[in-house]
Amino acid sequence: MKRTAFFISDGTGITAESLGQSLLSQFENIEFTKRLRPYVDTIEKAHDMVQQINTAAEQDGVRPIIFDTVVNSDIRKVLATSNGYIVDIFSTFLAPLEMELGDGSSYSVGKSHSIQHNAHYKDRIDAVHFAMDNDDGARTLHYSEADVILVGVSRCGKTPTCLYMALKYGIRAANYPLTEEDMERLQLPPALREHKEKLFGLTIDAERLASIRHERRPNSRYASFAQCEFEVREVENLFRRENISNINSTHFSVEEISAKILVHKGIERRLK
Amino acid sequence: MKRTAFFISDGTGITAESLGQSLLSQFENIEFTKRLRPYVDTIEKAHDMVQQINTAAEQDGVRPIIFDTVVNSDIRKVLATSNGYIVDIFSTFLAPLEMELGDGSSYSVGKSHSIQHNAHYKDRIDAVHFAMDNDDGARTLHYSEADVILVGVSRCGKTPTCLYMALKYGIRAANYPLTEEDMERLQLPPALREHKEKLFGLTIDAERLASIRHERRPNSRYASFAQCEFEVREVENLFRRENISNINSTHFSVEEISAKILVHKGIERRLK
Repeated sequence: MKRTAFFISDGTGITAESLGQSLLSQFENIEFTKRLRPYVDTIEKAHDMVQQINTAAEQDGVRPIIFDTVVNSDIRKVLATSNGYIVDIFSTFLAPLEMELGDGSSYSVGKSHSIQHNAHYKDRIDAVHFAMDNDDGARTLHYSEADVILVGVSRCGKTPTCLYMALKYGIRAANYPLTEEDMERLQLPPALREHKEKLFGLTIDAERLASIRHERRPNSRYASFAQCEFEVREVENLFRRENISNINSTHFSVEEISAKILVHKGIERRLK
Repeated sequence: MKRTAFFISDGTGITAESLGQSLLSQFENIEFTKRLRPYVDTIEKAHDMVQQINTAAEQDGVRPIIFDTVVNSDIRKVLATSNGYIVDIFSTFLAPLEMELGDGSSYSVGKSHSIQHNAHYKDRIDAVHFAMDNDDGARTLHYSEADVILVGVSRCGKTPTCLYMALKYGIRAANYPLTEEDMERLQLPPALREHKEKLFGLTIDAERLASIRHERRPNSRYASFAQCEFEVREVENLFRRENISNINSTHFSVEEISAKILVHKGIERRLK
């Protein structure tokens, strides 16, 4: 069964998409065609959306699901004329929240992901540059400023995880690749030893690692299963010996790994 | 007025946080202390949460707001015993969606941000590495593989925007800094000219740029207002002359800039 879902917002659409995806992921038997439509912020764009929704309804033979966080009531009225099933995210919760908070909503658009109302926005951008500058063991000089230092073999997911933690939460995350050289010494490099309380290990299944490395350097020793297996085993031994908390990234997304690291490390996320 | 808000999930908490933040941002008169609590996935952790909620209630003198996407009903029952006002995100929408979709929810935890059900996960990770490898004009060789190439002066927000587009949407975004040299030639460098249809410009207020650069290289010519003003003016002239779509990043977050770029460029986001 096929069905179209629209995530519609007069802002970035991030909230409509996040909630919509979560809800749809609960329905595993249905294949959804997903359409993100941010900045539907004029009557004209709303009419265009109605057309897109009705076209999808005709093509699918069933009405699309609309996850909508539009604040403007005139635009909402236009969307309501479409042949879609509307999941009205904001108004469902705003009225009861107004009661509970004893305060009126400002009904203003796109607050949540905007720069003005986000005291920590600069922290996030600084954290991104910190992650870039301290990627892949490039510099170890600034580890004292790091919130966390990810360690693991090359291509186990350190870089995307650091960047995600920086962008989403303003966490200053460095990462250091444990190379064969470090492994043969069977101990942590001095730069890491000094900041042991900040270390967090990533590991990965050797087979998956070999396939990732193979794309980067096909048929190299670096990408061979034997080499990957050796490195992963040695690094996991090191984590055990040095008592470094770690998780296996093979079956987790950067979102999941990041959330697990912050729970583990007890870092109170820098929420906007 | 102060009030505590908890975003509680048995998964990453991303959905609870995203929707919770959006809703709370509508209440401008209330100062919220925000607590993200992912992976509340055992009865024991639920009891610990109840304690945290009740402590906050005592300290604030008013009950906290709980945004909860917990799927497991036993854990939800424990949370319901707390002295919090619960905004029950999932169950509010799941039952009506089950009716509409004619299919039962799988009531499974953490689907939406997991790796298994995300066909495009690999695209996202590849896109992150693409953004890293093609950052700051480092390489222009692979621009044919780019979905978009951001251009602008140094430190106008190109890098964080590229990384965000990669991580969130799997968009392959390169970026190229327009340096004084390019400006004096008053034309696009050849590497960019070839891919003109992929270019998108970022600009920024000179004052803001000077302050950002000042943090990086205090009291340098690079950070001087005069230099920043000159570069911004020249680049804006270039955008105009070459008819390159662009936005001023000064008042927008990376989330907003990214959403605007994708609408502008008509890139259908690679949604999971």
